[in-house]
Amino acid sequence: MTDLNIAQLQRRLADFAASRHWEPYHTPKNLCVALSVEASELLEIFQWLTPEQSARVMEDEDTAFRVTDEVADVLAYLLQFCEVLGVDALAALSAKIDRNEARFPVPDGVEPSGRHSSE
Amino acid sequence: MTDLNIAQLQRRLADFAASRHWEPYHTPKNLCVALSVEASELLEIFQWLTPEQSARVMEDEDTAFRVTDEVADVLAYLLQFCEVLGVDALAALSAKIDRNEARFPVPDGVEPSGRHSSE
Amino acid sequence: MTDLNIAQLQRRLADFAASRHWEPYHTPKNLCVALSVEASELLEIFQWLTPEQSARVMEDEDTAFRVTDEVADVLAYLLQFCEVLGVDALAALSAKIDRNEARFPVPDGVEPSGRHSSE
Amino acid sequence: MTDLNIAQLQRRLADFAASRHWEPYHTPKNLCVALSVEASELLEIFQWLTPEQSARVMEDEDTAFRVTDEVADVLAYLLQFCEVLGVDALAALSAKIDRNEARFPVPDGVEPSGRHSSE
Repeated sequence: MTDLNIAQLQRRLADFAASRHWEPYHTPKNLCVALSVEASELLEIFQWLTPEQSARVMEDEDTAFRVTDEVADVLAYLLQFCEVLGVDALAALSAKIDRNEARFPVPDGVEPSGRHSSE
Repeated sequence: MTDLNIAQLQRRLADFAASRHWEPYHTPKNLCVALSVEASELLEIFQWLTPEQSARVMEDEDTAFRVTDEVADVLAYLLQFCEVLGVDALAALSAKIDRNEARFPVPDGVEPSGRHSSE
Repeated sequence: MTDLNIAQLQRRLADFAASRHWEPYHTPKNLCVALSVEASELLEIFQWLTPEQSARVMEDEDTAFRVTDEVADVLAYLLQFCEVLGVDALAALSAKIDRNEARFPVPDGVEPSGRHSSE
Repeated sequence: MTDLNIAQLQRRLADFAASRHWEPYHTPKNLCVALSVEASELLEIFQWLTPEQSARVMEDEDTAFRVTDEVADVLAYLLQFCEVLGVDALAALSAKIDRNEARFPVPDGVEPSGRHSSE
């Protein structure tokens, strides 16, 4: 992970939109739609792959670029969504991990625990 | 934005999954499906709201909690997806903003520019 | 609505996949991912539109074609998903409307009722 | 597949919404968001399943009900979306299959053909 600061990236995205007069389009609802659409574009890459194939997507240069590019789009819309609503994404995640550590205690045994869909 | 480090959060998520033996479930494909599902859970909050209502979701305490919680889930799966594939999300976003600055030059005039869906 | 039979279309889709040897790819999970991806491609058309603009998408010939084409893709994957799992989509919908009529009684008054997100 | 008529179901859905004064919420954009959200709720059932497990979801009674119920929701929003925009979903699908038959000729050989993500 690079030393890039997420707050600086969020600021660059806000400046980018403002200087292009895109703010009227950037309602929380529209940014959330865009986030969902970009997550699906990332998912499209994986739709016909087996689990094993999905673990090797970075071995092909073109696919690796596409994956990385869609990750950037997802993060871009997530940060822009958080910016317009004043949500601190890192604090939200830190608090969520705290809650999940209480909710899903580490099992004593060695058997894989069942996976909870409502995690 | 808090001073939390995104790399530290990514490490906590990886440790969390490992200690619960969830790694077999965490194929890139499954994590990408989960990312998409969580983005839709965030979107569900907005589905019947007008653009104006969507701008005020943080005024209601329960809705604000729900939005923040879903943002955490989206970021959690995005970081776990990046972890298993070795993608540096911040570097990807930084490079994408660089490309977009070249692709969408700042307009000279003051008229709102048309919004590009393929941004 | 044309007189086309949905069962005949479902049959054509199954034959189409079988004759191209696509059945190994058509697990219920993959078809469900594809359904979700196609629904997002439809949504992408609307992501920056106001509610009013969204009501006029069929006035532009190219956009109308794109909307119709994505509707076809969504229905195609929904029917293929139902085919491999033996789900009768029309019977499912009929039963669901029955349940919803009991769950959301028609209001006596004339005020618009609040919209339930969990419909 | 039952003998239910899709046009009759579409009519019941329109009457259902009208009698509850939900029409102001049912913009094409909102219905498309709802369609996407419901497709993700269906996908959530499959997110941690292997391909093999996904083929057996109908063996568990509760999961089978949940799958059927989400299929109903997806079809309900697809038909309501088509209703407000005047799209004939069955005609759209029939035309799309015609186009795909020309676009993906049946292979001569017996090897499984590569799967096209842009189908």
